[in-house]
Amino acid sequence: MTQDPEPDQSNLVFAVDLGGTHLRAAAVDENGKILFRLKQSTPHGDSANEIVRALVSLARECDRQAGEAGANIQALSVAVPGILNVSEGLVLKAPNLRALDGLRLGEALTNELKRPVILENDANAAAVGEMWQGAGRGHRTIVCLTLGTGVGGGIILEGELWRGVDGSAAEIGHMCVNPFGGVPCPCGSHDCLEVYASATAIVRLARERLPLYSASNLGKERELTSEKVYDAGVAGDQLALEVFRVMGVYLGAGLASLVNVINPEIMIIAGGAANGWDLFEKYMRHEVTDRNFPLPAARVKIVRAECGDDAGLLGAARLAFEARFG
Amino acid sequence: MTQDPEPDQSNLVFAVDLGGTHLRAAAVDENGKILFRLKQSTPHGDSANEIVRALVSLARECDRQAGEAGANIQALSVAVPGILNVSEGLVLKAPNLRALDGLRLGEALTNELKRPVILENDANAAAVGEMWQGAGRGHRTIVCLTLGTGVGGGIILEGELWRGVDGSAAEIGHMCVNPFGGVPCPCGSHDCLEVYASATAIVRLARERLPLYSASNLGKERELTSEKVYDAGVAGDQLALEVFRVMGVYLGAGLASLVNVINPEIMIIAGGAANGWDLFEKYMRHEVTDRNFPLPAARVKIVRAECGDDAGLLGAARLAFEARFG
Repeated sequence: MTQDPEPDQSNLVFAVDLGGTHLRAAAVDENGKILFRLKQSTPHGDSANEIVRALVSLARECDRQAGEAGANIQALSVAVPGILNVSEGLVLKAPNLRALDGLRLGEALTNELKRPVILENDANAAAVGEMWQGAGRGHRTIVCLTLGTGVGGGIILEGELWRGVDGSAAEIGHMCVNPFGGVPCPCGSHDCLEVYASATAIVRLARERLPLYSASNLGKERELTSEKVYDAGVAGDQLALEVFRVMGVYLGAGLASLVNVINPEIMIIAGGAANGWDLFEKYMRHEVTDRNFPLPAARVKIVRAECGDDAGLLGAARLAFEARFG
Repeated sequence: MTQDPEPDQSNLVFAVDLGGTHLRAAAVDENGKILFRLKQSTPHGDSANEIVRALVSLARECDRQAGEAGANIQALSVAVPGILNVSEGLVLKAPNLRALDGLRLGEALTNELKRPVILENDANAAAVGEMWQGAGRGHRTIVCLTLGTGVGGGIILEGELWRGVDGSAAEIGHMCVNPFGGVPCPCGSHDCLEVYASATAIVRLARERLPLYSASNLGKERELTSEKVYDAGVAGDQLALEVFRVMGVYLGAGLASLVNVINPEIMIIAGGAANGWDLFEKYMRHEVTDRNFPLPAARVKIVRAECGDDAGLLGAARLAFEARFG
């Protein structure tokens, strides 16, 4: 008997990353290969129905394309930006898609599509994606941070997502890193890691320090972005370098706390703001070396993510395969 | 058939809390009842042998007393103040009993006593003790903090201790709560939770603020202790009240981070400095309410420990019974 080198296309999962801006979707096989992709804007009405309809329509298009290729979509798996009750397929709180709050999204989709549907928090799904196909391969106890507009987190303990008793564990972006700092966070609190280590934070830190750096070219920018601050830093701009130093210290302090609490094998840094890696890396690593006991500090790998924007999709797909739906 | 209301005294564990100052030991039955206790000073020589000999001698005395009562000691279980490799019975690092560093304490004791010996980190054991016989009864996902000279931690996830990949998880006292604060910590780092929320921290916070509170009676004390600061606070001393406010904010910020990372059912506060509860409680709770999402904040119970100094002993005993050694 010879082994078939082709993935089993009869066994596909339709994975969707339900973002605040786009629905990014893909048909994924059990080897993590993406067969084809679909994408559309996320509807932003007041009613959850529009989002459900958009997902159903994407899934039907996926069925059609899979059918043309002689394959079958066995299950739908959705990465959702919010706090979920995974076992009930229930969205508890989705700050960027409030129409979903309280929706039994799993049931709504299953009713339409007559197939198993699983939901997972997007940052959790990204952690699983990185473990399956990215920087976390070969590891089983993993912390994953996604540095985007905000800071998301996923924690995998001995191969299993840790979701906590209410599904709200791994809200790493809202760890407190400075009780008396006074910087407000979109979550309603203040001084969360997110306000010091996200793309938004990079812009804020630069803007606040502009008056102290009259020589900085960033003062001439009409609209600051984290990318512009990064480019300036690469060109040697002192303000930009200071911003990434401060960001690196806070990020490192947060990572060090996670090492002290969880003692993971690896911490994976994903998201757009991770692109500043070469400017913040040494400050981040210094905090971990400085703040952790030698054994766990020497053990823990701190690396960049490898799956890019596909981490959530891949993780969602993997979770469906693990649940034996794929 | 009638059920015997008496515990099965033929099935005892000899549990030892190996402290920096005392060896506190007890024979514990499978219902958590302490049959009798033994205590002696902890030897402080350079050699681990003295500690091993003291433990062996205590265990033999325990055998003798158990024998008189017609009972048998099935196993020895030791709560150790340090980082351990539990499965190998190995002490990796014991900052307050450095003679133990690198010692295969489990093997050394088994060789002498010809019985199974298990080791556990003391703060982990205390968490298990509280779950078994104290404030954590009926809960399975628990964070336990011990506020003593330092701050120790234990994390139980779905009924099992989470030790991390190197046995150094739950070092909650060394979470960073203020990256740029500059207060040194005995661990070699700075601005760990321990330097803001331990008995030592209470004294430091009071001493530093003395010049600002000339009316405070604490200025007349020759030697400040956390108990004296507490007594002054109860009597309305403004400096003492400010100290417990600051301590409560930092402790609460640390707890809030733990809720965001772990999302536990209950957090249990143990240790001598928890005696300041009525002075710091409201500030601590305010941070959790302020910093956590409503669902996990409403869910998590934050309570005082109930087992007092016996938590470590009881937890060590329980772990031996769970390992079917008792």
